[in-house]
Amino acid sequence: MPYRSPVSEFQFILKNVVDFDTIAATPKFSEASSDMVDAILTEAGKLCDDAIAPIQRNGDLHPAKLENGIVRTSPGFADAFSAIAEGGWIGICADPEYGGMGLPLTVATAVNDMMSGACLSMQLNPLMSQGQIEALESHASDEIKEMYIPKLISGEWTGTMNLTEPQAGSDVGALSTKAEPNGDGSYAITGQKIYITWGDNDFAENICHLVLARTPDGAPGTKGISLFMVPKFIPNADGSLGERNSLRVVSLEHKLGLHGSPTAVMSYEGAQGWLVGPEFGGMAAMFTMMNNARLGVGTQGIGTAEGAYQAAYNYAMDRKQGRVGGTGTIIEHADVRRMLAHMKSDTFAARAIALACGAAIDLQHATKDPKWTARAALLTPIAKSFGTDTGIDVANLGIQVHGGMGFIEETGAAQYLRDVRVTAIYEGTNGIQAMDLVGRKMMDGGDAAFQLMDEIEAFAEGQKANLPELAEAVWQSTEDLRETTEWLVAQDVSDRFAVSVPYLRAFARVLGGYYHLIAAAKGDESRQRLAAFYIKRLLPEHVSLCSHVREGAVDLMAITPDDLAV
Amino acid sequence: MPYRSPVSEFQFILKNVVDFDTIAATPKFSEASSDMVDAILTEAGKLCDDAIAPIQRNGDLHPAKLENGIVRTSPGFADAFSAIAEGGWIGICADPEYGGMGLPLTVATAVNDMMSGACLSMQLNPLMSQGQIEALESHASDEIKEMYIPKLISGEWTGTMNLTEPQAGSDVGALSTKAEPNGDGSYAITGQKIYITWGDNDFAENICHLVLARTPDGAPGTKGISLFMVPKFIPNADGSLGERNSLRVVSLEHKLGLHGSPTAVMSYEGAQGWLVGPEFGGMAAMFTMMNNARLGVGTQGIGTAEGAYQAAYNYAMDRKQGRVGGTGTIIEHADVRRMLAHMKSDTFAARAIALACGAAIDLQHATKDPKWTARAALLTPIAKSFGTDTGIDVANLGIQVHGGMGFIEETGAAQYLRDVRVTAIYEGTNGIQAMDLVGRKMMDGGDAAFQLMDEIEAFAEGQKANLPELAEAVWQSTEDLRETTEWLVAQDVSDRFAVSVPYLRAFARVLGGYYHLIAAAKGDESRQRLAAFYIKRLLPEHVSLCSHVREGAVDLMAITPDDLAV
Repeated sequence: MPYRSPVSEFQFILKNVVDFDTIAATPKFSEASSDMVDAILTEAGKLCDDAIAPIQRNGDLHPAKLENGIVRTSPGFADAFSAIAEGGWIGICADPEYGGMGLPLTVATAVNDMMSGACLSMQLNPLMSQGQIEALESHASDEIKEMYIPKLISGEWTGTMNLTEPQAGSDVGALSTKAEPNGDGSYAITGQKIYITWGDNDFAENICHLVLARTPDGAPGTKGISLFMVPKFIPNADGSLGERNSLRVVSLEHKLGLHGSPTAVMSYEGAQGWLVGPEFGGMAAMFTMMNNARLGVGTQGIGTAEGAYQAAYNYAMDRKQGRVGGTGTIIEHADVRRMLAHMKSDTFAARAIALACGAAIDLQHATKDPKWTARAALLTPIAKSFGTDTGIDVANLGIQVHGGMGFIEETGAAQYLRDVRVTAIYEGTNGIQAMDLVGRKMMDGGDAAFQLMDEIEAFAEGQKANLPELAEAVWQSTEDLRETTEWLVAQDVSDRFAVSVPYLRAFARVLGGYYHLIAAAKGDESRQRLAAFYIKRLLPEHVSLCSHVREGAVDLMAITPDDLAV
Repeated sequence: MPYRSPVSEFQFILKNVVDFDTIAATPKFSEASSDMVDAILTEAGKLCDDAIAPIQRNGDLHPAKLENGIVRTSPGFADAFSAIAEGGWIGICADPEYGGMGLPLTVATAVNDMMSGACLSMQLNPLMSQGQIEALESHASDEIKEMYIPKLISGEWTGTMNLTEPQAGSDVGALSTKAEPNGDGSYAITGQKIYITWGDNDFAENICHLVLARTPDGAPGTKGISLFMVPKFIPNADGSLGERNSLRVVSLEHKLGLHGSPTAVMSYEGAQGWLVGPEFGGMAAMFTMMNNARLGVGTQGIGTAEGAYQAAYNYAMDRKQGRVGGTGTIIEHADVRRMLAHMKSDTFAARAIALACGAAIDLQHATKDPKWTARAALLTPIAKSFGTDTGIDVANLGIQVHGGMGFIEETGAAQYLRDVRVTAIYEGTNGIQAMDLVGRKMMDGGDAAFQLMDEIEAFAEGQKANLPELAEAVWQSTEDLRETTEWLVAQDVSDRFAVSVPYLRAFARVLGGYYHLIAAAKGDESRQRLAAFYIKRLLPEHVSLCSHVREGAVDLMAITPDDLAV
């Protein structure tokens, strides 16, 4: 059984869990009626099932490669990209003024989820362009916007982000790429960038690189950094392609997974570039690119979890082993059922968190209500970390369900784990997401977090008659999280960092309980049974995580590098 | 920094945690004085560091391959195997009558741990021979013993285990390979076997296959199965090689990891074989092979964890990123330190459990005291599951410590995860280990488990003055485990299976707390700080696991295959 996009799952969550109607009721998104969204999700599901899923193994078996300086993509990737571009999916959220669909990010999140489940290597390409479009919409001059955005949306051109250098990874401020004024308003960019996702390809006529670099007057650290548009071919005024720019792909990385997605080392050798945003405004523009990209990466984890789950479920429904009743297959073994229920209920939890995050971002943009700004800011690092951790956990369990066949590459179970592993690292490691949550996102003293907890407890109160056991468990877990949060915000920020990862996970566990409780209240008995599994068996993890958090920093930082020596 | 065998860690654990002196005090192991064991561990450490670790990347980059029916091994593997064989390490536990060293399994476990950290693909080869030697010692005729065991020990010949067939994995009883009497005391073996580790190689002159097959009168299921020795070349009476047997390698699997270890599909086409043990005694002989091999596989997980930990620690001590004090490297970041402390303290816990299991097996053999038989039986599935799960968790964290570099194959961080992943599957999946623990190993009503808990609580009581916080936490966790165990053994066995995996993990967590408490009581301040990390931050996982166990089977089995449909 091949991958099938879980369209009805998104329809259920949008309708019942994240209250999409509120978004559709805003003037900004008034065209996103539920009929239209249903049609869009159905159409996207078909694209993923028919045009994208079939290339997933190709990318793994026939990696993109560099031949005489030209990146040759995996078989079928060019056609799949055309199908994505022709359907208008690259510009799903982009401004209609430039040819975008202008749809809510919530819908785009659902589409990206399906596309990630179908083929993560392929999905990375439009995700990069989407991040670039958003950065240009927010920061670029009208001239750049008009030149680049329509071609990015149409897929004639594709976009990349160039942040990292060998000595400047999580510490972006350490970068050394230089930008020197050419005297004509453009700059000469010189330096080496690494980990450039889809740094080149053979199906778009131009590649648009957004590059972080330091101008001659740029101070050391992040403050002196600016952002530049550096295209592979310099466009003429009419949008036709002019001369080849002085940049090249030095090499492609040999990675654990995502073999269909070429990860380039890029060299800029006096390449011509143009400022995006003001000089020294590079970090602000980068955060625009990265902020929604974080939700996008969380969604990659969830989509991969879906793909891995479907493969494991189909295997478990087919494989006969041992004397069992029912289907006669290994799904009748209690531990196989436990693994599948774990995978499915965690995927639901992560997906609901991501869609709630997308909904908060949409409402922030549509209403300008600071409540939604704060909610979006709070949920983004959780959606990114928990989505990607869930992708890894579910893919790992998927291998286990396959038994010995899980270790054999031809089944494809292992590819999910190899592909998804990097999502916990790129776009800000999950450790950095957790620092963001307990640091920047709690500079309000925890207000946004407590407001969300109030909402959860109120809902749980309302369900105590209907679903007493589940509602009580969710209410109690929220109360535990509240006490832990109160303790946490009373600590110095640097001390919080020592326990930020378990704190983020505890928060995600409780949120998952909340969304499962909503699903149980509004869904059928199937959803109630799955919610019971999550709330009774997985949610209690929050107890040990909160207990870890309350240990604070002292004991941990007392462990010296010598204590850890090998 | 290359891999360095943690010799002093084993010396500490043998002396302080598992009380090796008790083993050395038995007549059976009277030669294993602590001086001798120190010398052996030091010598094995040198072998691993100098001769085995250097080939680890070779195996991954230049996989074993099948050429015209002949397996060509990875560069350097033949020399490394010679070094292992010449040092006598294959026969470390084997009977001195046949040329073995006759050392305790506890010592062999330490050696296998170091060898696994150096190169898991290579280590699998002697591990297979060791399992075969043990099966032959226990079940084979004197003629077979005398013919085969000395050559297996010398490494002139190597051994394999042939259990699995496409339709018969965890359900061994479903196998269909046939054994028909030739009339001369030998049998003609016909069938296909899969997943045959080191099914062939180009450095041993003969390959000795132990094959499970069914004789004409063999009943269906496991009862009708017999075990046969089926050599690649049929030995003459003087041990020289005679004619080529009718068996061949059909293909090698393309696996997620362990590329240096050829995993063969074997075809037996009327191959000549000889009974090992009585007709229909195949399962008993197989359990001999598998029982200690389970500890061996747990040890593979631990050794890999050590290798992955060392790579991550060395990277963290070298990589500069962000403004930090101290070493100036990323180990100063609280979350990196948390990950390293997690890796190191979990590796210690898993290692202590494995060595305690080895010690129990040694004392069982040396004293025949049923207490040790029961202890060994109880600890074996825990050592296997927790050792391999720890290998996977630690390798996964090791990638995270490396950041973006963790996803790039050239650092080697990802290889640890790819290599170790199968250890949770082969030699009985970890799900099956857990079923063994709550089923067969609790047919005593939990007596062996409660006896171990009594021991832990008595030790913790004794430490309440010295290490009050840690001792109290370990005592309390043991009490929780006791209550959960009392609840569990009151359930039907089939109901226990639904919660066997979380139960096994809870048990392992508590055992890890016990051994860390011993280390804190007998070791220096470094060990106390690491024990505090484990006991305060990781041990509390037992709370959520015990809570999962107490949910029982009903809610889980109420989830139907349809509920789980995609």
